[in-house]
Order: sequence, then C-alpha cells, then structure tokens
Amino acid sequence: MLLYDNPISGNCYKVRLLFALLGIEYERREVDVVDRSDRAEVLGDLNPGLRVPTLVLDDGRPLAESDAILVYFAEGTEYLPADRYARAQALQWMFFEQYSHEPNIAVPRFWAEAGIEADPREAAAKLEGGYRALEAMERHLRGREFFVGDGATVADLALYAYTHVAHEGGFEMGRFAAIGAWLERIRALPGYVSITA
Amino acid sequence: MLLYDNPISGNCYKVRLLFALLGIEYERREVDVVDRSDRAEVLGDLNPGLRVPTLVLDDGRPLAESDAILVYFAEGTEYLPADRYARAQALQWMFFEQYSHEPNIAVPRFWAEAGIEADPREAAAKLEGGYRALEAMERHLRGREFFVGDGATVADLALYAYTHVAHEGGFEMGRFAAIGAWLERIRALPGYVSITA
Repeated sequence: MLLYDNPISGNCYKVRLLFALLGIEYERREVDVVDRSDRAEVLGDLNPGLRVPTLVLDDGRPLAESDAILVYFAEGTEYLPADRYARAQALQWMFFEQYSHEPNIAVPRFWAEAGIEADPREAAAKLEGGYRALEAMERHLRGREFFVGDGATVADLALYAYTHVAHEGGFEMGRFAAIGAWLERIRALPGYVSITA
Repeated sequence: MLLYDNPISGNCYKVRLLFALLGIEYERREVDVVDRSDRAEVLGDLNPGLRVPTLVLDDGRPLAESDAILVYFAEGTEYLPADRYARAQALQWMFFEQYSHEPNIAVPRFWAEAGIEADPREAAAKLEGGYRALEAMERHLRGREFFVGDGATVADLALYAYTHVAHEGGFEMGRFAAIGAWLERIRALPGYVSITA
C-alpha cells in the first residue's frame, strides 16, 4: 500500500500510528503541506478533498479522510468496538475531532510550524474553540481510561494525534490532568510510534 | 426517542430525513441555534460538543454528531453499504462533509438566516472553500447516480442536507448540473421529507 503522507501532519500520523499498532506494512510518499500547487495533479484522481493522508490500497483503490481510513483498517480488530452503540460513540468522537477539535488545535500549530503570522481575531477564535474542545475531552476522561469502553479505539488515536502536540500551537496543557494521563496511556500501547518516527 | 433538534439546522435535518426514510418514530425538542446560553444546561450531560442534533435513545443513552447518528441507524439497512470498502467510502464522504463542506456552506446560510454581518475576509474564505467542495462533488457525480454504489446511502443524506439549501447562503448552484440532478434523485426517495416538514 502507498500512503500519501506528510511527517508533520497529525492526520497522517493517525494512520501511521494505527498501522504500527497493527503491524501493517506500507510505503510513504511525502506531499508538501505548505506549497499545495501540485495537489490536484498528485491527488486529484484519488481524493476529492485533495488532503493528506490519502491511501492507495494494494489493489489500486484509493481511500481518503484520516478517520475513515482508521475505521477501515480497525474493523475486526480491538481498535473498533464490536458493539453497535460503542462503535457509534467512537464515530461520534471522530466527528467531534474533525469538526470541533482539529480545525482549532491543528491550525495554530501549522501556523507556528510554517512561520505564518495569523490574523489576531482568527487566532483568538482558534484558541477559544481549541480550549473548548480540550475541556470537553478533559471532562469526559475524568474517571475513564479511554474515550469509549475499556481499551484504546480509533477514537483515541484520532484525538491523540493533534492533542499530544497541541502545546506546539500555544495551548497550555498543564491544566488538563485527565488528558495528560490519557496521553501516557496511548504512548504505552504496544507498537506505539511517535509522530517523528 | 428524543431528538434535540432545530428546524433550520441541516445537521438536524439529516437525522429527521433518515428517520422518515426508515419510518422511525421519535419526539422533537427544539434547541435555539442563535442564543446558545443554555447549551451546557440542556446538552451538557448528553453531548460533549454541545451541538444539535443530540439524540437520546429509548433506553436513555445519548448519541451525538449528525453523521454518527446516521451510521448508527443505517446499519443493517440499504443506507449503509454492507461491503467494507464501500462503507469506508461512505465514511470518507461524511468526514469530507463535516470538514470541507459544512463549515463553508452551512455558515454563510446561518449568517443570512440570523442576520449576521460577516467579516468580508471570512465570508470570502467561506465562499471559496464552499465552491471547492461543491466542485469536488460535481466532478464525482458526473456519470454517477449517488456518491457510493448504486443507491442512496448515508453519504448522500449527509451531503444533501446543506447542499440543497446552499443557495440560501449565496452559492450559485446553476453551474452544478450533476449536483442538480442528484438533488432530484434524493427528493424522489420514498419517504422523503423536506427540511421544513
């Protein structure tokens, strides 16, 4: 399989992390996340969203959107709950991640990485939205080990990707004790790889 | 079942539409989408995202995020593909919808409905992102009847909700012929209800 990938993208890291946990082999091809001028040429026939990660399966069929890729490969493993309601809860957290979490938490980190001077009003809105998402996670994790059920699922991997580097975008993570303990639990999963691996 | 709902929210409409198509009965309780001051009180224990739709199942368990609710109820019906890859493609389009489509297409409509004067730079960015999402849909629908496979799935319902009212946010839909034909196919589904029903 071929993963169109970028080493600093948390969305790409989600897929690399699940593949490492499941021992799935694949090839990586780097796509630029700053200069996007070749996106349509490289990804146009594979992914309508022109985003990374984009995956090409062994038989040539493409699959896109990080969280959809996670679900596809987690099916039949411990990382996707067998119970219908628990599976829906995992999806709930993944949609939360893509709607309420990633746009607020990934973007300030990207600005910092790429040296982009953000509009102050936009930056403040991202911080506010990001803290709101982190507070929702913190409340949910109090008294829980993982987001859904008793073990790590795709919901945890999806949320881990940008949460564990949120400080790089200026979020003060010291105030989130339950999140901090949960991050440690993810890091302790057998087969775990870091975002820089 | 109890649906925390709002009549103008396309995200809520997705759930009402699937329930109508499947003949599922439920109760509606309206939540304000402009004055959000009571959100934590009303939805705090049910939905970490504090968004509508939020559903309370017959047994009292909550479920949130429109597209997760769709998947939960579509399981075992024609609206969720039985094939693993097709199911992942449906999820791919639903994550595309929540990340690339809804934030750009729903928000200008909301501004118009609520009489909010948007920042011109932000409004321009929404229009640009919205047209990009619509163009991706248009390309995909050329030569196809539905987004995934041969029949309507949750991917179509998710994308239909805000696409069919995109003009209310200022999007000129006349240029999207394949989308226009697809909107008609959704309207022709047995059991279809309109967003104002």
